[in-house]
Amino acid sequence: MTIEAKLSERTKYMQANALREILKVVAQENIISLAGGNPAPESFPLELIRQLSSDALDKFGAGALQYDKTEGFEPLREALFDYLPEQGVVNVNRQTLSIFSGSQSILDIVGKVLVSPGDKIAIEAPSYVGAISAFNPYQPTYVSVATDDDGVIPEALEAVLKQHTIKFVYLLPTFQNPTGRTLPLERRKQVAALLENYDVLLLEDDPYNALRYSGETLPPIQQYAPDHVIYSGTFSKILAPGLRIGFCVAPAALARWLVIAKQGSDLHTQSFGQAIAALYLTGGYLRTHLPYIINLYRQRRDAMLATLEAHMPNGFQWVRPEGGMFLWMTGPIGLDAESLYQECIKRGVAFVPGKYCYFDAGVGLETMRLNFTMTAPEVSTKAVQTIATVAEQTIVKA
Amino acid sequence: MTIEAKLSERTKYMQANALREILKVVAQENIISLAGGNPAPESFPLELIRQLSSDALDKFGAGALQYDKTEGFEPLREALFDYLPEQGVVNVNRQTLSIFSGSQSILDIVGKVLVSPGDKIAIEAPSYVGAISAFNPYQPTYVSVATDDDGVIPEALEAVLKQHTIKFVYLLPTFQNPTGRTLPLERRKQVAALLENYDVLLLEDDPYNALRYSGETLPPIQQYAPDHVIYSGTFSKILAPGLRIGFCVAPAALARWLVIAKQGSDLHTQSFGQAIAALYLTGGYLRTHLPYIINLYRQRRDAMLATLEAHMPNGFQWVRPEGGMFLWMTGPIGLDAESLYQECIKRGVAFVPGKYCYFDAGVGLETMRLNFTMTAPEVSTKAVQTIATVAEQTIVKA
Repeated sequence: MTIEAKLSERTKYMQANALREILKVVAQENIISLAGGNPAPESFPLELIRQLSSDALDKFGAGALQYDKTEGFEPLREALFDYLPEQGVVNVNRQTLSIFSGSQSILDIVGKVLVSPGDKIAIEAPSYVGAISAFNPYQPTYVSVATDDDGVIPEALEAVLKQHTIKFVYLLPTFQNPTGRTLPLERRKQVAALLENYDVLLLEDDPYNALRYSGETLPPIQQYAPDHVIYSGTFSKILAPGLRIGFCVAPAALARWLVIAKQGSDLHTQSFGQAIAALYLTGGYLRTHLPYIINLYRQRRDAMLATLEAHMPNGFQWVRPEGGMFLWMTGPIGLDAESLYQECIKRGVAFVPGKYCYFDAGVGLETMRLNFTMTAPEVSTKAVQTIATVAEQTIVKA
Repeated sequence: MTIEAKLSERTKYMQANALREILKVVAQENIISLAGGNPAPESFPLELIRQLSSDALDKFGAGALQYDKTEGFEPLREALFDYLPEQGVVNVNRQTLSIFSGSQSILDIVGKVLVSPGDKIAIEAPSYVGAISAFNPYQPTYVSVATDDDGVIPEALEAVLKQHTIKFVYLLPTFQNPTGRTLPLERRKQVAALLENYDVLLLEDDPYNALRYSGETLPPIQQYAPDHVIYSGTFSKILAPGLRIGFCVAPAALARWLVIAKQGSDLHTQSFGQAIAALYLTGGYLRTHLPYIINLYRQRRDAMLATLEAHMPNGFQWVRPEGGMFLWMTGPIGLDAESLYQECIKRGVAFVPGKYCYFDAGVGLETMRLNFTMTAPEVSTKAVQTIATVAEQTIVKA
């Protein structure tokens, strides 16, 4: 049988996520990787999770193992009714909040419910490429929105909304992946006003907000335009990604559709992990464990920033992120970060060439994404020194 | 904002699963339900899962909590390389086997990868309605295939394959939901031959095969036509559904596409549950625990069959399933099982009116699905007596 002849039309729009394919190669070799986007394994509260697994069985019994409601495990939803307003999310209730199998599955379900073939999604460039993998099967087209050091530029967004009928805007306003940039308060309000003026939806992807190492906490855009924002969060960065638990607050009429779509997609998110996450919140463990993660990552961020400062040749600049997991570095114009990457790989160091974080070809060739959370300071220092050395040689050759 | 105006075209083909909506109503009231499709909570090995959760953290450490490969948690895949051939599944290897977030998500991903709008899916009638919820967003049309007491009729399938271009056939050959029927060996071979002759794919949904209470084990259809069959299995019935772990063996070229699609849908299935399932298999616990489940369910099946025999009025007949969770009852022609259901609900007993298991309207009006696994024999006996009493009155009135 020729499987190719059997495939759906939409598979023409789908492909393996190039970034994940890079990571697979990197993982197979024995190199220092600043390429990944994983939380540090030492940030997982292993003993606590062992305890909470046992507690979940004591407290919820078979309920933690049984088929459950599509909307989510009730004790977890209740815990989030308390937690999310503390994060500045508004309108959190039974009609708006549901639990998903990781925030990736929120991207998929939002695409399923909103996107007809040819619909336009506005995306800041660069952005999280995994979102493209989620949206592509629904055959949207994309419109880039320009960004600067403060994230998406409201005037650029307005120009796009004026010129195009946009189905929804996709943004990561806080410690963005890949750049580490954060949208300032004033811009958040401006974006919210644009959403309302142009009556357009925003998918606000907010996986990193709890990982702030410096500066002041900002409210999500959702707070300023709750009827126009689908807010997406996750336990991946504050507990463990392997549990695959995301949560979504959406306008009630839309949330209902998300649940209908999820029912067909995977019935419900695994109950056992939801039970563990519920106890993690209600037991106050997030409050005690999060400072440990923050402290760990802050040291790693600071170490990497110091090494970049000390070693990178002239012509390179980088974002100084106030939180999250990544920093974005831009080389001199004409630099081919992919060649730099290939040279670094030979010396046992990996990062992500930034061009993979754009969906337009030929853009961001001189950019790169460095992860600072996975690697201990002494190791990342060595890695950055290698990148600096190779960069210096590359520039001299060029 | 009017959300309705923002929805994708495909939402017109989506709706809440009527059956799940019934179950929600039933769950809210305080009634004996033979309507559900849940495993008995007392079938879950709670203490073992507590132990395996802890063991998984000892053995895999942070690996049980970290982001993982889309294809599945490697130790679980390796365990299934041994387990699935014992179940008669062939061609099980790294290129063909992947893990999904419950078998529902296999239905979704298969729909995503194979179905273009208007493509035809051949489905035995009645069938598992959750599959319709999974396929509908991809906008297929359906072609019914007739069944009898032995399941799908090969001649009827051939007639459909002759008349229509079918994208794939969807069957539950073993202890089918909703009927409890099992396709005999000879028919399995006939179906396999048809798949090859007409070069058409089969999605073989096989959640119940391990739950055999009598009769002889049969090989899956996949064994006779591995290049034409997507085999779908799950831990929901042999461990716990709340873990949401399904597994799929497909021809390699198709399996690759299923993984690409899954990458966009949910990145990967939760690692912690996969680690628990891996230890459940490799530790030999399935072998010791499964007989307990089988014994529990066999008693319940036998009790229900005995009560039906003793109490149901003339004109009713029912399937005597050799395994699984359901039995299918057919009343005299003209019986409205929905009215019977409404009367039974008033007396505190629920079942599923069979018409909800057909996707053609007006079919199966006199049929009903009874679950025998959730309810202890003394309780189900009471429930069946109530159904019998109401049925008797209904027939007399009619």
